Amino acid sequence: RCLLPLCLGLFQGVLLLFFALFVTYDEPSAQAEDANLVASQVYSTFPFFQDIQVMLVVGLGLLLTFLPRYGLSALTHNFLLLNFSMQWALVLQGLIHHFHHGQVHLDLHKFLLSEFAAVTVLISVGAILGRTSPCQLLVMATCEVPVYLASEWVIVNCLGVLDVGGTITIHVFSCYFGLGVSKALFWAGQKPLHPRETPTPRSDLMSLVGMLILWVFWPSFVAVLCQPGDAQHRAILNTLLAMSASAVTTVVASSLLERDGKLSPGHLQNGSLAGGVAIGVVADMVMPPVVALALGSLSAMACVLGFRFLTPLLGRKLALQDQCGIHNLHGLPGILGAAASAVVILVASKDTSGSHFSQLSPAGGNASEVVGEEQGDGGVSRQALCQAAGLVVAIGVSLVAGLLTGAALRLPCLARPPERLCFDDSLHFKFQDQVESLGPGSMTEERALALKEQV
Amino acid sequence: RCLLPLCLGLFQGVLLLFFALFVTYDEPSAQAEDANLVASQVYSTFPFFQDIQVMLVVGLGLLLTFLPRYGLSALTHNFLLLNFSMQWALVLQGLIHHFHHGQVHLDLHKFLLSEFAAVTVLISVGAILGRTSPCQLLVMATCEVPVYLASEWVIVNCLGVLDVGGTITIHVFSCYFGLGVSKALFWAGQKPLHPRETPTPRSDLMSLVGMLILWVFWPSFVAVLCQPGDAQHRAILNTLLAMSASAVTTVVASSLLERDGKLSPGHLQNGSLAGGVAIGVVADMVMPPVVALALGSLSAMACVLGFRFLTPLLGRKLALQDQCGIHNLHGLPGILGAAASAVVILVASKDTSGSHFSQLSPAGGNASEVVGEEQGDGGVSRQALCQAAGLVVAIGVSLVAGLLTGAALRLPCLARPPERLCFDDSLHFKFQDQVESLGPGSMTEERALALKEQV
Amino acid sequence: RCLLPLCLGLFQGVLLLFFALFVTYDEPSAQAEDANLVASQVYSTFPFFQDIQVMLVVGLGLLLTFLPRYGLSALTHNFLLLNFSMQWALVLQGLIHHFHHGQVHLDLHKFLLSEFAAVTVLISVGAILGRTSPCQLLVMATCEVPVYLASEWVIVNCLGVLDVGGTITIHVFSCYFGLGVSKALFWAGQKPLHPRETPTPRSDLMSLVGMLILWVFWPSFVAVLCQPGDAQHRAILNTLLAMSASAVTTVVASSLLERDGKLSPGHLQNGSLAGGVAIGVVADMVMPPVVALALGSLSAMACVLGFRFLTPLLGRKLALQDQCGIHNLHGLPGILGAAASAVVILVASKDTSGSHFSQLSPAGGNASEVVGEEQGDGGVSRQALCQAAGLVVAIGVSLVAGLLTGAALRLPCLARPPERLCFDDSLHFKFQDQVESLGPGSMTEERALALKEQV
Repeated sequence: RCLLPLCLGLFQGVLLLFFALFVTYDEPSAQAEDANLVASQVYSTFPFFQDIQVMLVVGLGLLLTFLPRYGLSALTHNFLLLNFSMQWALVLQGLIHHFHHGQVHLDLHKFLLSEFAAVTVLISVGAILGRTSPCQLLVMATCEVPVYLASEWVIVNCLGVLDVGGTITIHVFSCYFGLGVSKALFWAGQKPLHPRETPTPRSDLMSLVGMLILWVFWPSFVAVLCQPGDAQHRAILNTLLAMSASAVTTVVASSLLERDGKLSPGHLQNGSLAGGVAIGVVADMVMPPVVALALGSLSAMACVLGFRFLTPLLGRKLALQDQCGIHNLHGLPGILGAAASAVVILVASKDTSGSHFSQLSPAGGNASEVVGEEQGDGGVSRQALCQAAGLVVAIGVSLVAGLLTGAALRLPCLARPPERLCFDDSLHFKFQDQVESLGPGSMTEERALALKEQV
Repeated sequence: RCLLPLCLGLFQGVLLLFFALFVTYDEPSAQAEDANLVASQVYSTFPFFQDIQVMLVVGLGLLLTFLPRYGLSALTHNFLLLNFSMQWALVLQGLIHHFHHGQVHLDLHKFLLSEFAAVTVLISVGAILGRTSPCQLLVMATCEVPVYLASEWVIVNCLGVLDVGGTITIHVFSCYFGLGVSKALFWAGQKPLHPRETPTPRSDLMSLVGMLILWVFWPSFVAVLCQPGDAQHRAILNTLLAMSASAVTTVVASSLLERDGKLSPGHLQNGSLAGGVAIGVVADMVMPPVVALALGSLSAMACVLGFRFLTPLLGRKLALQDQCGIHNLHGLPGILGAAASAVVILVASKDTSGSHFSQLSPAGGNASEVVGEEQGDGGVSRQALCQAAGLVVAIGVSLVAGLLTGAALRLPCLARPPERLCFDDSLHFKFQDQVESLGPGSMTEERALALKEQV
Repeated sequence: RCLLPLCLGLFQGVLLLFFALFVTYDEPSAQAEDANLVASQVYSTFPFFQDIQVMLVVGLGLLLTFLPRYGLSALTHNFLLLNFSMQWALVLQGLIHHFHHGQVHLDLHKFLLSEFAAVTVLISVGAILGRTSPCQLLVMATCEVPVYLASEWVIVNCLGVLDVGGTITIHVFSCYFGLGVSKALFWAGQKPLHPRETPTPRSDLMSLVGMLILWVFWPSFVAVLCQPGDAQHRAILNTLLAMSASAVTTVVASSLLERDGKLSPGHLQNGSLAGGVAIGVVADMVMPPVVALALGSLSAMACVLGFRFLTPLLGRKLALQDQCGIHNLHGLPGILGAAASAVVILVASKDTSGSHFSQLSPAGGNASEVVGEEQGDGGVSRQALCQAAGLVVAIGVSLVAGLLTGAALRLPCLARPPERLCFDDSLHFKFQDQVESLGPGSMTEERALALKEQV
């Protein structure tokens, strides 16, 4: 049980060493103009960055507290993994940068990219939440971050895929990575439903609050890397439209599918966010706003249908465990978004004979410079193919890497908790015992109350 | 029970059609200067917009969770109504715009105005929370948004009322609309107190967190439409002063009114926000800061006194149901604010012989251009009269429209829940059954725990 | 029991009078350029200001809800004290300013400084949370704010201490003030553990959410007063690094110290923030990023070790009550930060022969102009001594003032609650009684449920 602190402590040491040797800040600006430029960059990026931090730390954390007796663990593991993965991504990115350019100059943008790498881990964990030890989660993060960085590099820089909101590179990738891990880790077959696995109204409420926080700040996540100006404005509006359509469509779909027209809290917690996942890849493209609405509606529908039919099917047929339903929230909408991006690119070029399409390439903040050189009809259909290729690469790489990682997580030293102790905070947390001290009379009642509440 | 998804689904279809036909984005800026302008507009509006979204989705949602077994429904209905009303307002505004200027160019500002229209619905719902079906709420939203848009147009554009924070156009309007709906819907008489209607300490805590979130972000709500620069700075400061005075005065008033000097959670949840409601109409006017403090104190006092004396009185005499006490939070402070605006306008003109008063008119972001032409003493007293007239119009229109809407909500097809099933999440949500699976021994205890918690 | 509302009401009257006589706003800008300047100042400060408000009102409030039956009181007292202390600081700062320069011109920056004064009160309260009456807390705030303003003036303006994030002036000061109050107030000796003092998993969860909110927005707190541009950028990055290292190190330290490698929720709630406390004093200095990481790790370690060993020791040896462990979160990391600042100043000057060090002085937003004139080696070592002197002054002044204040709080008229009623919301709040109304059959069960939940 000392493996976790030892490994983490060791990693902190390596991190310190790495920073001491290779990382520095920019030289302070010599001139007033440069200082103004830095200031305006801070003012334009920092609010987005804070929004994303709120999403990941508070919103996603709360979303995972739907397991009634696993709330503290879910919040804490989410928080720990975010920090660990971000540091690990900083180290890896720094190393790569170091070999090419020497000293690493840290800035807010590098933090942001590391945060995005950490997001993939936080999403993948959803597939195996509650049945894993912190050690297993850390090993998984250690494996996933480098694979993500490599696959992101291939998809964006080699294939030239346009994906400003990370639909393909982050959501699809992390979904199939998580499913791969889950498959390899719980090979034996589908687990029977654990009694602590069922949400209570109270834990559903906390989870719903988490969803609402994610919902509100999602536009910042999609738009942060966009080119400032029109592209960013468009990305914000498209995301708002998609999220709004998702929210309404989720209610429609859920109450059509459940008996008596009631809603399922799980559908709401996920479906309302599906539009945000799908819109990422097309958010800054030049397209009519109706596309964002339609994409939001479709992805919410796909998500709810996935929960109702696909997840049980995958469970039965493939013995695939997907605790939070990440395939419905990140997988299906991500694929929908990728398909939509190919269609938008093809249609946009036909509509405007390529004149508008030249907007596409500079619009993507991290879009490759390869595209956009010659934008004839050939270039356009090649770009659409690239989007599809990116999707295939993301799914393929992540599935294989996930399966391998999951196999590694079966190592006995990683202390997978026995089924009986799953989904229980008391496995990971030491709670103080209730004490008696006020006097014999009032105590029995007090103690009874305290015990009741602890339940 | 299929009415809700069918109507909502139909509406989504209409929305898609409308967007496909009439809505587009601005052409991308041709020049770098234009792009910079767009970027700086995004940076100056978007943070305010996000703050307002947090207020409405998370803050207001949590504020409504004071009903202990109705939290999920309150959060969800609030979220659904926000999205539906915003989309509906976008359609209506777009239609009006389309008939005058052709193609609708969507931007963040139009979103913001639609969001404001949605706020009126969210406030009005407070009067009838817990005793209505989602269908009834949607019909109410469908009726309220067009009436709001018309009354806002009359009040601001025809009467030239200055109301940058929506005190008259949003708060007073939605309060009396909600009361009208409640009166017409629950005509028969005052309901006896339902056992699930009483807050528990835990639900009060969640509601208090919601209030705190609203309290923190309120300055963004008031100042978002102000002229950037001095007027916006003043609006922020005035709102901060008013909210701070409200918070302290609420504690004073509540502990004077309750036995033993204890506080009532309900007073705190509402009184602390009363200053923000009242300040909206004068926030950007040129006036000494003490006015903001005094207005904040007075409105908090009015709110707490309203809860203590007026709400029970209205219940007994008029058989008026006001579940969340919206009359105390939005009605009384709104009227106070409107009165204060008339006084400020009159006094400001005497102090400075009109020289300062010319600030008033450009200061209001949505202020009419009618005023401000000739600003003699006649103009000033006419402006003060206008404020009063605006208040009268808001109250009259909203009451009549609310009564009519409430009558429509009595239609049997809208499925008002029977009294026995009110205030209960399980009417709207399908909860998974607790399962037994671990083995006979541990199960009885486990199941007992799970059941207890579900309570 | 009427003392509280009477005193608070009286204070509101004084506040109104003071504002009426002495406080005004800036004249509206005559020229467009000035208006633009005001607008850009608002846009650059307001988001930071809002972040800090969220931290104090929501984050800190929730962090204090770890006492399971004292959540409403903790949130409310925190909220009331913030508002009261801020208003009181506005009055005091205004008076001082008035005697020197006449009329007080209110702006966002003055609000911010008052907010910082209020923070000291909110931190100090942590030492005596749950065993005090609101009256006592208000008297404490009344005493602490002027002492803070005086000590802050001495430390920053007379000694020229560089402390952009308030590590010494705010955190260390308020910690020892709170401990002094606690010592003088609970002189008699260590209280036995009260049964309501033990957190439950649910109250720990709420508290953890509060910590996460504080964690996310901490960079805004540290960087808000920095010089825009490089210094602010550096302050943000350093704070991010320190907080991230703290989060991971806390997990390491806590699981090494607890049995079975489990985590203690209390360690997490505090240790993760320790880095933010420590980094404040060096955040904007020119130093390699590794220093921020190391400082974050060290302070988290100190915090966890403090909880494990120092707090029990102080309790046994000095009979010192420290309810929230503010000495571990604010005291130890604050001292570490102050020591680090002296070291950084000394080393930085050696590295760069003083050329870089000239950055230090303009970097601190509220740094004295005395330093920076001549920055030879003598100047540098004098600056390092100043940092140490500032720490000593902060500790000395706050301890003495705290002890005196604590003695004053023993006045019987301030209504300290008896031990039996401590840590109980029902001492401060009036809860509605559960009612029976639906009919005899269903009622017994309903009522039982309602009662259960109220527990």
